[in-house]
Amino acid sequence: MRIARFSIDGNVAFGAVEGEKQDELVLDIIKGIPFADFELSGTKVPVSKVRLLPPVLPNKVVAFGRNYADHAKELGNEVPDAPFAFFKPATSVIGPGDEIQYPSFSQDVHHEAELAVVIGRLCREVPRERVKDVIFGYTCANDVTARDVQKREKQWARAKGFDTSCPLGPWVETGLDVERASDLTIQLTVNGEQRQLGRTSEMTHSIEDLVVNISEAMTLLPGDVILTGTPAGVGPLHVGDEVAVTIEGIGTLTNKVVKRG
Amino acid sequence: MRIARFSIDGNVAFGAVEGEKQDELVLDIIKGIPFADFELSGTKVPVSKVRLLPPVLPNKVVAFGRNYADHAKELGNEVPDAPFAFFKPATSVIGPGDEIQYPSFSQDVHHEAELAVVIGRLCREVPRERVKDVIFGYTCANDVTARDVQKREKQWARAKGFDTSCPLGPWVETGLDVERASDLTIQLTVNGEQRQLGRTSEMTHSIEDLVVNISEAMTLLPGDVILTGTPAGVGPLHVGDEVAVTIEGIGTLTNKVVKRG
Repeated sequence: MRIARFSIDGNVAFGAVEGEKQDELVLDIIKGIPFADFELSGTKVPVSKVRLLPPVLPNKVVAFGRNYADHAKELGNEVPDAPFAFFKPATSVIGPGDEIQYPSFSQDVHHEAELAVVIGRLCREVPRERVKDVIFGYTCANDVTARDVQKREKQWARAKGFDTSCPLGPWVETGLDVERASDLTIQLTVNGEQRQLGRTSEMTHSIEDLVVNISEAMTLLPGDVILTGTPAGVGPLHVGDEVAVTIEGIGTLTNKVVKRG
Repeated sequence: MRIARFSIDGNVAFGAVEGEKQDELVLDIIKGIPFADFELSGTKVPVSKVRLLPPVLPNKVVAFGRNYADHAKELGNEVPDAPFAFFKPATSVIGPGDEIQYPSFSQDVHHEAELAVVIGRLCREVPRERVKDVIFGYTCANDVTARDVQKREKQWARAKGFDTSCPLGPWVETGLDVERASDLTIQLTVNGEQRQLGRTSEMTHSIEDLVVNISEAMTLLPGDVILTGTPAGVGPLHVGDEVAVTIEGIGTLTNKVVKRG
């Protein structure tokens, strides 16, 4: 099931996305919240009549660095033996169709297409065999990065945490199991031209490894998001660009780059 | 004014702390939330009858590294020319009297006493001369750090973001201006023995610099917390230790170290 979060007439709701053609998609409004038991209301609205929001409002976004060997190498970095993680704050999250605001303190903002894991349950110290039980679903992410700032500053709060640096969406696909999610095509285009192409099977550390690694240290909450690293092909974004992340079996997350107002 | 957050009979409230002697402190319960206009209710409860909570529930905690030259040197690090920041997640925050749980994935957990700035207003790109207007007050923090993990992992999400690694409290002092907050004694004891001693005037980058630096990149929300770095003297904590951070004009934040259950 594809679960979207949206606003209509000033109210926010979750809905199950029905249909296949982009301009014929319909939302069946969910009664309750999707992390617990919920029912479909049967009340349907066309996606074209609503504003899609980030599919979840994470308490925290945990992102893993250099998890695709080809990407680590393209930036001249070693592939780390063990995963390492950083945070993107809730204030960096935007939804599908929202604008990426090019910040004033960087002259080299890059795109990074990533598979995002959405956590469905409060959990800590998750054993490997239970990882599947704590995952709610998967969505597309763009780990937008001020590359120049990242190179200058030892920790990446500003480089990867600025406002609008974490587009998520367009919805959460709950129908993929971990095995399937670990073998999907992930691609990114800028103005329709392909820039990144990879498969989630190329991750150095698997989805299970990443959830085990981070949950060993900290409690994960429903709606928390784990970004699993980006394949090779990262590069600059410019004001006016339209950047789109497409993951097989999930959907396409599209955002336009604007100057910060 | 000292503003505490507390629970009593299952309810959470804010209160203004009155009195000086530790065992005679009284809370005057606040009507409304302290970030907006509020009134004191006149209903008073002794601090000894309540459980003090973290004085704020931050959406994000932004922490600055190596902001005291003597501390940077004691770990063999250079003093950075520009500030650099990392995040501690909301799930790492605990209050005064809460237990620091020694995590299983580290064998070298350290204390780091820090002055914490509490933000009072939604703000971004704060000019230096307006920094004073966005600060709600100040509290004590302990930037508890898994030093061994920090050395191994390039980014510090696990090393500084594990559960219970961000004690805050005991309350927010709103009566200090930026000048005064920039010249306070800060000390830390373990089992009553002094380990860290410094003055906030020794910061390499001032409180104003730090707020300007981080707000250039991202929106700060009421209740967000900025940790301003630790003076020299960091060292290991062990299960059973009682660690206390005292900042002149604010108060003392005490926590006991236990084995994670």
